[in-house]
Amino acid sequence: MTATESVPRQALTATELQEIDRYWRAANYLSVGQIYLMDNPLLREPLAPEHIKPRLLGHWGTTPGLNFIYAHLNHQVRRRGTEMVWIIGPGHGGPAAVATAWLDGVYSETYPDVGLDAKGMRKLFRQFSFPGGVPSHAAPETPGSIHEGGELGYALSHAFGAAFDNPDLVVATVIGDGEAETGALSGSWQSARFLNPVRDGAVLPILHLNGYKIAGPTVLARIPEDDLLAQMRGHGYEPHVVAGDDPDTVHQQMAGVLDTCLERIDAIRFRARHGDGTAEDVRWPMIIMRTPKGWTGPETVDGMQVENTWRSHQVPLTETRDNPDHLRSLEEWLRSYRPDELFDADGAPRSETTAVVPSRERRISGSPHANGGLLLTDLILPDFRDYAVEVERPGEKKSEATRVLGGFLRDVVAANPRTFRIMGPDETQSNRLGAVFEATDRTWNTGRLPVDRQLSPDGRVMEVLSEQLCQGWLEGYLLTGRHGLFNSYEAFIHIVDSMVNQHAKWLKASGALPWRRPIASLNYLLSSHVWRQDHNGFSHQDPGFIDHVINKKPEIVRIYLPPDSNTLLSTMDHCLRSRNYINVITAGKQPQLTYLTMDQAIAHCTRGAGIWEWAGTEDGEEPDVVLACAGDVPTLETLAAADLLRRHLPELRVRVVNVVDLMRLSNEGEHPHAMPDSEYDMLFTRDKPVIFAFHGYPWLIHRLTYRRTGHAKLHVRGYKEEGTTTTPFDMVMLNDLDRFHLVMDVIDRVPGLGVRAAGLRQRMQDERLRCREYTRKYGEDAPEIRDWVWEH
Amino acid sequence: MTATESVPRQALTATELQEIDRYWRAANYLSVGQIYLMDNPLLREPLAPEHIKPRLLGHWGTTPGLNFIYAHLNHQVRRRGTEMVWIIGPGHGGPAAVATAWLDGVYSETYPDVGLDAKGMRKLFRQFSFPGGVPSHAAPETPGSIHEGGELGYALSHAFGAAFDNPDLVVATVIGDGEAETGALSGSWQSARFLNPVRDGAVLPILHLNGYKIAGPTVLARIPEDDLLAQMRGHGYEPHVVAGDDPDTVHQQMAGVLDTCLERIDAIRFRARHGDGTAEDVRWPMIIMRTPKGWTGPETVDGMQVENTWRSHQVPLTETRDNPDHLRSLEEWLRSYRPDELFDADGAPRSETTAVVPSRERRISGSPHANGGLLLTDLILPDFRDYAVEVERPGEKKSEATRVLGGFLRDVVAANPRTFRIMGPDETQSNRLGAVFEATDRTWNTGRLPVDRQLSPDGRVMEVLSEQLCQGWLEGYLLTGRHGLFNSYEAFIHIVDSMVNQHAKWLKASGALPWRRPIASLNYLLSSHVWRQDHNGFSHQDPGFIDHVINKKPEIVRIYLPPDSNTLLSTMDHCLRSRNYINVITAGKQPQLTYLTMDQAIAHCTRGAGIWEWAGTEDGEEPDVVLACAGDVPTLETLAAADLLRRHLPELRVRVVNVVDLMRLSNEGEHPHAMPDSEYDMLFTRDKPVIFAFHGYPWLIHRLTYRRTGHAKLHVRGYKEEGTTTTPFDMVMLNDLDRFHLVMDVIDRVPGLGVRAAGLRQRMQDERLRCREYTRKYGEDAPEIRDWVWEH
Repeated sequence: MTATESVPRQALTATELQEIDRYWRAANYLSVGQIYLMDNPLLREPLAPEHIKPRLLGHWGTTPGLNFIYAHLNHQVRRRGTEMVWIIGPGHGGPAAVATAWLDGVYSETYPDVGLDAKGMRKLFRQFSFPGGVPSHAAPETPGSIHEGGELGYALSHAFGAAFDNPDLVVATVIGDGEAETGALSGSWQSARFLNPVRDGAVLPILHLNGYKIAGPTVLARIPEDDLLAQMRGHGYEPHVVAGDDPDTVHQQMAGVLDTCLERIDAIRFRARHGDGTAEDVRWPMIIMRTPKGWTGPETVDGMQVENTWRSHQVPLTETRDNPDHLRSLEEWLRSYRPDELFDADGAPRSETTAVVPSRERRISGSPHANGGLLLTDLILPDFRDYAVEVERPGEKKSEATRVLGGFLRDVVAANPRTFRIMGPDETQSNRLGAVFEATDRTWNTGRLPVDRQLSPDGRVMEVLSEQLCQGWLEGYLLTGRHGLFNSYEAFIHIVDSMVNQHAKWLKASGALPWRRPIASLNYLLSSHVWRQDHNGFSHQDPGFIDHVINKKPEIVRIYLPPDSNTLLSTMDHCLRSRNYINVITAGKQPQLTYLTMDQAIAHCTRGAGIWEWAGTEDGEEPDVVLACAGDVPTLETLAAADLLRRHLPELRVRVVNVVDLMRLSNEGEHPHAMPDSEYDMLFTRDKPVIFAFHGYPWLIHRLTYRRTGHAKLHVRGYKEEGTTTTPFDMVMLNDLDRFHLVMDVIDRVPGLGVRAAGLRQRMQDERLRCREYTRKYGEDAPEIRDWVWEH
Repeated sequence: MTATESVPRQALTATELQEIDRYWRAANYLSVGQIYLMDNPLLREPLAPEHIKPRLLGHWGTTPGLNFIYAHLNHQVRRRGTEMVWIIGPGHGGPAAVATAWLDGVYSETYPDVGLDAKGMRKLFRQFSFPGGVPSHAAPETPGSIHEGGELGYALSHAFGAAFDNPDLVVATVIGDGEAETGALSGSWQSARFLNPVRDGAVLPILHLNGYKIAGPTVLARIPEDDLLAQMRGHGYEPHVVAGDDPDTVHQQMAGVLDTCLERIDAIRFRARHGDGTAEDVRWPMIIMRTPKGWTGPETVDGMQVENTWRSHQVPLTETRDNPDHLRSLEEWLRSYRPDELFDADGAPRSETTAVVPSRERRISGSPHANGGLLLTDLILPDFRDYAVEVERPGEKKSEATRVLGGFLRDVVAANPRTFRIMGPDETQSNRLGAVFEATDRTWNTGRLPVDRQLSPDGRVMEVLSEQLCQGWLEGYLLTGRHGLFNSYEAFIHIVDSMVNQHAKWLKASGALPWRRPIASLNYLLSSHVWRQDHNGFSHQDPGFIDHVINKKPEIVRIYLPPDSNTLLSTMDHCLRSRNYINVITAGKQPQLTYLTMDQAIAHCTRGAGIWEWAGTEDGEEPDVVLACAGDVPTLETLAAADLLRRHLPELRVRVVNVVDLMRLSNEGEHPHAMPDSEYDMLFTRDKPVIFAFHGYPWLIHRLTYRRTGHAKLHVRGYKEEGTTTTPFDMVMLNDLDRFHLVMDVIDRVPGLGVRAAGLRQRMQDERLRCREYTRKYGEDAPEIRDWVWEH
């Protein structure tokens, strides 16, 4: 039995079919109108060139399919009362999202100036892809959307993120066959293995095979159908096929398949929740819908086939102002939807047109889940001070910052069992956050063995070896009003660079929309960082994610480099309380010295950057040199350098400045956290040499500070892309960030230090050589390097 | 019939089995030795703590599986004479790659100081993950590797890239079950649909299910086997299962399955090349190998199960210097391989141990394909001057730069039918390179319809909607000694940020190895850029790939922003001839003014940056202000600003500088292309205001130039993350990069311009307002903006 044969042939009554079809025609009409018309929206007069927009922008090809799906979803929700959101993978089919939200009445409620009448329709049309209007995609401006869809690949991971811990929700998710070729989407099918039917909602993937991308066919539309079904079954789904181009036939098929799928979802839920409670080996239904690209649009244009080819991808009829044939075709096309049947004299949708629209609180385009800030509640946070490590004297004892943090996170998990998840590519333990497993498990739904530890269907730690999937899940979870943390190896977070771009753009655009309520920040904890890749070497060394993130809008991005355990605790607490940001925290997992008591850590993190008096030798006078640092390893080297200077050049007045909140440095006015020039000058002086030891690429500090007064005397050490599998100290030596080199930098830059300094410089050179030789010989760092503590 | 049942039970004679097993044991011994030993390599004396490395680094878990596979591949190659390379997805199993290359003799030929004797073995062991030694991964330093494997996801795409246009090659590719969870790998299975059995080699994927990642189980190892087989069949493969933990049994299975697979590959080739020539619907064989993680290692440690669990991922026995039980276990483990049977008195592998090693020219670890520079030949390039657009006077006529380039690329494709491919995510036509389809087609092997155009199995344009797959294919193609070009939308190239990192690291490390021969550069053409996303808006606007790339080693990266058609032609010719670089070319596809004749373009590109005298008003005297620009749209706005200044403030001496080669700007000494300070000062002056209109994020220019003398007076305009679906001029206005704003910037920064300038400034403000109003009203840019040409 093929999937198609399982579909009942007459799922709809004649009336139901008519209702769905009418809604579909209306949505299609409104979509074409958005792409083409700036006036005469109801075609109450013959279409004339001046009614057409001068620039025709938008994507028709995917739009009728989206409208078709939405009409059917509406029908189901109205009948069943299902709580549903939809995610539009082909987000460039924005006209569909806008048209359907308008028909549902949601658009006019959100934007009262776009009313449900002829004037509103005119505005609806005109604003689309029009300067000063609305974007062409399912953007933040679009009610009912949590997925812009411009960069393809994330529809399914967003959908699963939305479904987690939303037990009553169904997330209908349209995936274009173009998007299905991406790596991100290909890897997202496995999400079904992580969905817990007891506590999570359902995702209903609708793979829309319209056959073509921009200029050519798609892989999944052309492989043998048996292969496609095998793929879907192999991923754990039960595929149902809808295929055709005759609307009435496809309506019946689609309705029948949706009936089956939604009933199957109900059955899965019922069995899991009221039956034996087993959640394993669930087969979730999914739909393969094979309909023409540009369906119901012009079949041919100038003798070329357009419908059901790539030629309908954007605007099928061009030059409609100047080409009378095209103008006539456009008018025929628009009139083929019979607008007078659909809209009343005032231009409002007739009641028959919107008969399939669900009750007010169930309208898909009006779902609060698609405006997650409405549903957001604060996290219940234990007092992070309770997890503090004791610091009697700075730089004396060691702790593993992320391990300490793990205790705090364990209790965050425990206190928020349905609203907080930790995502990561199998590195929670490796990043030493293992304490969380005292409170929860890894989410695991797919076969367990006696040897397994810390796996359960309801685990709050989601590990899959795909940064893309972790990111997509977390975005979907946050956008629907929950909280989370993404922990990752620092280097590989670049895998989601482009996804971060898109999320940052979403937050930026959302911030300008009063009706979009703030959501929880996207929090990154990057560990296993560049300086401690002892096992893995060069490929695992890249601190450049920060560089990438700070290109986004300053209002959105925050960068933190806590140097020890207590500062990490304070920082994380702050980030978990924040809204609408992208917070990047970089912190080590290896045993490192602790410097600040919890009270000091809180004060330091609140300032974001400050002088560590105990480490310097300025004694109330203006310093000769500033040693600045950001990041745990650079802080260690800076303190060791300050120690060397104190012992060997005691007359030199050294100031030590530590920076936790990197954006404090940025030129005045360029970031909300940027300190005023007066404060910068107080910290770093206006004219003394500053030797800055930085966790990342050194030029990033210059990019932030180039307008600061003392910038000409700022000298930055950082990672300059030198590395391999080697010891921790050898790594800093390879990049000239080591304590000895920092001392040499000071001597080279402070004028008039005399002959004793010259001697010290030579000793530092010799020390480097000695350290290197020791390491080359014994395979480890010299003991005094390994065990260095601050001498009090 | 399950896949397993199809395997003949006794594929090996007793002698063959013994040979393979012996090689395997030797490779395992050498692997454990690399992780643990710094002395006593042959265990000729009892193992003592001082023989053990002080720091134990490396990954054992995957290594015995890799050694097992390699031993069997050797056996097959020796018997069949197959031309084979292997790709090690789990590249952190570096000990396996090194051990086997040493056994094959290739390692000692590459590094004569690591000879085939006890002294060489001691060095082999000691150097591994040792400071000053070799990395822990299958890095460039490893003979036979084209795949570092540190960042997971790219094994299969690299493999297909290596196979394209290598008709006799078999690329055996090990994919870990961790890697198989990544998006990139998940999306790579579809590569089989693009492989042409007539002209391409074969890829033999070996999915190695050892069950665990770092800390938990893997998805593919735990889903029902039927699901896994369905996935593989669905992707177009014929899966064969090898499973077990008893070596002899698994040896027989593996040999039988490999026999079947390699015979199947021969049969596919024969049918395609000598049969009916149909290449469609080929089912390529692949292997699923299910063996224990840490196979043959310690079963338990301190009472905990280690073999066949995640606990064997890295170093199963720790503290072997201090813990006598662990030391004893390690010695037992090492002796379990019976080293005396394997190595002779001098420490050389006995002839029985290497009996499976193929003939010298067929050794897998010595394949020239894994050192592609050896096979590289220059591209045959038509004279790019022949494609020049005529430029009588600068700024008068328009052309579409990428369309012009398309003609050149068409003939590059035609002249290099087996060594040049163009990759891109379905955007070749959209990026207006469509002329290439006069010479070739899109690669397509999977179902064709009458409506199709430009598809064939041997097409040289590879389009799949996955930037990751395009990148992986191209890297594999380049690393095996061929040439190519990746064209992409500018914004979405960020999807491969992390892959670029890894390739740049590979090139950097390779550059230090004299035996690794230079390969063709990785060339990017980024079009459909930030300033012209008329259809798509904000999500498609991100010029930050440049920022990302320039964090890599300066020796590797080159950035070009040709402002018009002829400069683009000259730049591309240069890039296609280059070696070992990552070249990023950003160029528009829309009609833009042309400025330089071909001779001028060549001169300008050779200098990389220069004064456009015709556009300025300096008349041989020192200018009052410099208008600098990089990128096509900023160049247009700069010229229009210069035009406005010439007309309205004719007494102001304006210099116009255009930058094509961005790295010319960078601080002296920081990049091989960086111009000397003297040249920079000549171009930009030491003290005059410079208004720089830049294609990308403005702070990138500051990051490059902060040490230049005139930097304090450098003012940069660029993309500051403002955008939506709007007109081209509205876009530059949103980001203050428009001509009017540039004129205002000049007036604000040149002192003493007086009241006339103040009046002009107000007019510019008014013009901006007028333009905005026009655009908001009519939906397009004002005619004089659209049609602006340089007035002569």
